Amino acid sequence: MASLGQTMPSEPEIGNAVEALAGVAERTPLMAAPHLADLSGADEVYVKAESLQRTGSFKFRGAYWRCCNLSEAEKLAGVVAYSSGNFAQGLAAAAATLGIPATIVMPVDAPEAKRRKTEAYGATVVLSEHGDRPREEVASAMAKDISEREGKVLLHPFDDPFVVTGHASAASEIIEELRLGGREAPDFVFSCVGGGGLIAGLASGFSRYSPSTQLVAAEPEGFDSFGQSLKADTVTRISGGAVSICDALQATAPGEVPFACARAAGMRHHMAVGDDTVRAAMRVAFETLKLVLEPSGAVALAALLMRPDYIQGKRVVVMATGGNIDFERFCETLGSLTVQ
Amino acid sequence: MASLGQTMPSEPEIGNAVEALAGVAERTPLMAAPHLADLSGADEVYVKAESLQRTGSFKFRGAYWRCCNLSEAEKLAGVVAYSSGNFAQGLAAAAATLGIPATIVMPVDAPEAKRRKTEAYGATVVLSEHGDRPREEVASAMAKDISEREGKVLLHPFDDPFVVTGHASAASEIIEELRLGGREAPDFVFSCVGGGGLIAGLASGFSRYSPSTQLVAAEPEGFDSFGQSLKADTVTRISGGAVSICDALQATAPGEVPFACARAAGMRHHMAVGDDTVRAAMRVAFETLKLVLEPSGAVALAALLMRPDYIQGKRVVVMATGGNIDFERFCETLGSLTVQ
Repeated sequence: MASLGQTMPSEPEIGNAVEALAGVAERTPLMAAPHLADLSGADEVYVKAESLQRTGSFKFRGAYWRCCNLSEAEKLAGVVAYSSGNFAQGLAAAAATLGIPATIVMPVDAPEAKRRKTEAYGATVVLSEHGDRPREEVASAMAKDISEREGKVLLHPFDDPFVVTGHASAASEIIEELRLGGREAPDFVFSCVGGGGLIAGLASGFSRYSPSTQLVAAEPEGFDSFGQSLKADTVTRISGGAVSICDALQATAPGEVPFACARAAGMRHHMAVGDDTVRAAMRVAFETLKLVLEPSGAVALAALLMRPDYIQGKRVVVMATGGNIDFERFCETLGSLTVQ
Repeated sequence: MASLGQTMPSEPEIGNAVEALAGVAERTPLMAAPHLADLSGADEVYVKAESLQRTGSFKFRGAYWRCCNLSEAEKLAGVVAYSSGNFAQGLAAAAATLGIPATIVMPVDAPEAKRRKTEAYGATVVLSEHGDRPREEVASAMAKDISEREGKVLLHPFDDPFVVTGHASAASEIIEELRLGGREAPDFVFSCVGGGGLIAGLASGFSRYSPSTQLVAAEPEGFDSFGQSLKADTVTRISGGAVSICDALQATAPGEVPFACARAAGMRHHMAVGDDTVRAAMRVAFETLKLVLEPSGAVALAALLMRPDYIQGKRVVVMATGGNIDFERFCETLGSLTVQ
């Protein structure tokens, strides 16, 4: 699989991931959403509800396929990763399903609820004390240290070819689901982007199965490093430091592996969405799709609601990527919506 | 199909409904919910998310199959029904899909939002002025009057063998989905009950496909006419007048057709749940399933959370039947939850 690190996963590689995930991951519904077609100007809109995936986000797909590809010795030694978010839960459940010990490093000030959930999925949570230093840096150094000291495999949430290939399984499901309904592959697929693992998987999958399908990268305003990188045609780091309600999409640069896939797939569409548009999308998801989406999980839908010209009259799929938010924070987030 | 009115629909009759609904209704996901197994003491729990059905509730199934079985002359003349709730939306969308004109009578004080949604699905909404008289009585008389005056077919939301048969399609999907995952049919299926259309369909479907599966009827406290009828072994009317947040489940007696099916299927399990348990279930659905459920849609889940003895160690399916609630009312409803 030497070619994996250079460009996109091949069709057989994606096929292997699809097969491994069958019956383990949820085959999440692709919901017809005529109401969203009216709102966006698209001809047809379908929502792939990855918020209904195991552990509440798409992250389970990549984490599971990554773990499947460990050697027997690595599986015995276990894995370690730094994450305070959806990858922590996805990896915890994926590793537990395969009987692999998992250690997750979280900053000491990560929400208690996330820590408990990650432990409930079967992982060992280690807290990092960062004091005055940047918390991600300290936690990530601690994960590296555990990896070296205890011989555990250090996993990255998105900059990893197997993670990308695992996420590509969603593309295969979308195409198959539409085909079963007698429909063609979509013209456009909207996906949120943090480090780029999901969109790289989708771009790879559609390149292999439906090359005419175009991906649209949706990022929070102030965290549009993927868009900047597409424009510059090279991985570009942004300063960060902006404020956004999308806590899972605050990477300051795309991963090398995902960006290489996106380039190889010829990706060019990208959008940045503001917090109020994300809030409106969360409300639309709640009231018309009956789905609970966390802010980051509603970013692709928010981009759709901005009605870009090129989707008018087209067939569009929107990734609803995560729903890990408690009721109180959901209310707080929507409570400050400015109704226009 | 003369036998339909007497007892349960036959396997071929259900099969016809399943076939007609394929590609028209959503094949809603059956979600594995290990967290609910822990909470309830069951061995495995699956949630059939009918809140993700077209028009936000299971009602579309029965309404569509009812409309499919109109004669050509009846289709031309159109249908009329009284409903201020989920059947209005389900019927409006079902009739529109088949090109059948639909008139829905709603009380003049029905929420504006429900009226607009029903119109958006393509129905003509007629408002009934009830003054000091009981509003359901007046609206229902008005629907009858329109039916007689304009020659439209008067449809009933649950007391109709075709409606029951349409709902039975959900049983077929549950069994097939479990089988595809290498699992056996469930030991128990929890469903809410208003007039009994859904549970009669499920009881019929499981009687045909998996006779060992037992149904559990879940009703709001004070509106347990189905449970009372099961105990008395005959359709029993209750006084009503109780207060419940479950606005869609306030029938004061089960329909004759649904109750006959339930009896024929040998149903015996029933539970009544209080408002606070329903609120807790709505929160569990929000936070662990990422599903928006209206109070009535969470009643079966609420019954599961009451941990009845007979489900301990068993395989259970819970019907999440509807999600038609706006964000503000959802917050109001959960805001008064008494945390214990």
